[in-house]
Amino acid sequence: MSILVVGSIALDDVETPFGSRKRALGGAAVYFGLAASYFTEVRLVGVVGSDFPSSHVDLLAARGIDLAGLQTVEGETFSWGGKYGYDFNARETLYTHLGAFADFQPAIPERFRKTPNVFLANIHPNLQLDVLEQVERPALTALDTMNYWIERTPAELRAVLERIDILIINDSEARQLAGEPMLRKAAARILEWGPELLVVKKGEDGAVTFTRESIFAVPGLPLDSIVDPTGAGDSFAGGFLGYLAATGDRSPEALRRATIYGSTLGSLCCEAFSTEKLTDLEPQEIEDRFQEYKRLTHFEHSPFLLDA
Amino acid sequence: MSILVVGSIALDDVETPFGSRKRALGGAAVYFGLAASYFTEVRLVGVVGSDFPSSHVDLLAARGIDLAGLQTVEGETFSWGGKYGYDFNARETLYTHLGAFADFQPAIPERFRKTPNVFLANIHPNLQLDVLEQVERPALTALDTMNYWIERTPAELRAVLERIDILIINDSEARQLAGEPMLRKAAARILEWGPELLVVKKGEDGAVTFTRESIFAVPGLPLDSIVDPTGAGDSFAGGFLGYLAATGDRSPEALRRATIYGSTLGSLCCEAFSTEKLTDLEPQEIEDRFQEYKRLTHFEHSPFLLDA
Repeated sequence: MSILVVGSIALDDVETPFGSRKRALGGAAVYFGLAASYFTEVRLVGVVGSDFPSSHVDLLAARGIDLAGLQTVEGETFSWGGKYGYDFNARETLYTHLGAFADFQPAIPERFRKTPNVFLANIHPNLQLDVLEQVERPALTALDTMNYWIERTPAELRAVLERIDILIINDSEARQLAGEPMLRKAAARILEWGPELLVVKKGEDGAVTFTRESIFAVPGLPLDSIVDPTGAGDSFAGGFLGYLAATGDRSPEALRRATIYGSTLGSLCCEAFSTEKLTDLEPQEIEDRFQEYKRLTHFEHSPFLLDA
Repeated sequence: MSILVVGSIALDDVETPFGSRKRALGGAAVYFGLAASYFTEVRLVGVVGSDFPSSHVDLLAARGIDLAGLQTVEGETFSWGGKYGYDFNARETLYTHLGAFADFQPAIPERFRKTPNVFLANIHPNLQLDVLEQVERPALTALDTMNYWIERTPAELRAVLERIDILIINDSEARQLAGEPMLRKAAARILEWGPELLVVKKGEDGAVTFTRESIFAVPGLPLDSIVDPTGAGDSFAGGFLGYLAATGDRSPEALRRATIYGSTLGSLCCEAFSTEKLTDLEPQEIEDRFQEYKRLTHFEHSPFLLDA
């Protein structure tokens, strides 16, 4: 089943200890869409300026992403400049130029309105609500947000949380949103507000998913090299929701596998600059990385102290 | 098979957001010894001052810990004061009074010298070497250290690393020791220097063990409440090495289970102040926590993208 993503499309300037890229393809909807495209049909809604290279449009189209919801307006594309040191969990934002994104009003094309799965990437909660008004009873809705909205628009954010199934945010955002330093308690509180599933991304330290009944955690896979972690969180969301959308399976076992597919796409994303790694993956490469997570985490229990 | 531990015994003053303790039993050898005592016979070598309460000695003896190597000298016991905020991975040291520990010269009692397993807790690398000179061909030797020795005595530390089997340190120490920000590369470098196994503790974010052939990682178990994380790393080491010592098994599967027993004892330690949780655990409680790690991390692979 197809998935609709609404969010940013960007041209990023990125510096890391290993190199840099200027005006590289980026944005939450782009990373999400590319990652999810390995699992299912992706429909994208977003906005770019008149400076957006047609080669980037071609690249998205080549992954089968339906761009009927791509608006092009006069002016500049949203642009983000960031710098990483050796601690890739921390980054410095050099600038944010909203450009065309400042006045973004998501318009969902008629033929996208019955898309069964919807991902609302990090935008103003009122715009996220507006998208939910335009779509028709999706089977699965998921949301990302950030500290900016948690601090500035808490009521609007709570309103949209009441209407979605899955919240995908990072560790510090989860604690901040709940006003609770212990992650397990923070998760319990957030799950009372609407979502049935909370996915907490921890960067290099993996991810944890909480339902009201259980917790699943995956550690970070130590990589030989991290080239550029930009977009890893949105790639995680793309792998996670792409798998759920493709299978239509929301069993506890499927949610665990979705967390591994999310980690898989997130970790692959980090191995090259910008979207370079996400544009021509082989299915075998994705499954091999999934298996690597299995080898990384697998153990058998034998109750030693009770047998002894 | 029994295990010998050489390291600090302390009286700690600890403050957390949830309460405080004055002159509470602490020290690396104590946490390690208590945790390991659930698996095998523990022999302890350390020093205390004349102010050390006999009730603490009784408590260690009650866990079956052999205290033939416990020296008592005139003066004050080593004492550490620390304060935690809501981020339990960070802590502030308020003071360190070395006291009796300043002139500690480990003297291994005659009947301890053939102990088959040895854990050298965090002390001066020259003292760690001195212990290795006193024991007779142990089957398994493991070492902890800290940034202080990595910075001040790098040559001495490298000398002792050449002679041990397992290095157990935290994340930032591993990167600092190797002079390499990527953990996987740092591990590869450290394993060239002698140890056959590197155990990297990541606090709330779990642990990763590296051999030359494979990597095993366990995520942090989100706890309902963390009361006091002091000693969690040494309790981890106690569970880890206690299991290996008890089984004599160093297969890859055993090393994975040891990592889970380490995580189990480390996480239990955090649930009460000082050593309060480690003094009267039931075997069932330890095995239940082990099973909790299994439920937390278990997933099955089905190669979705290749079947599709």
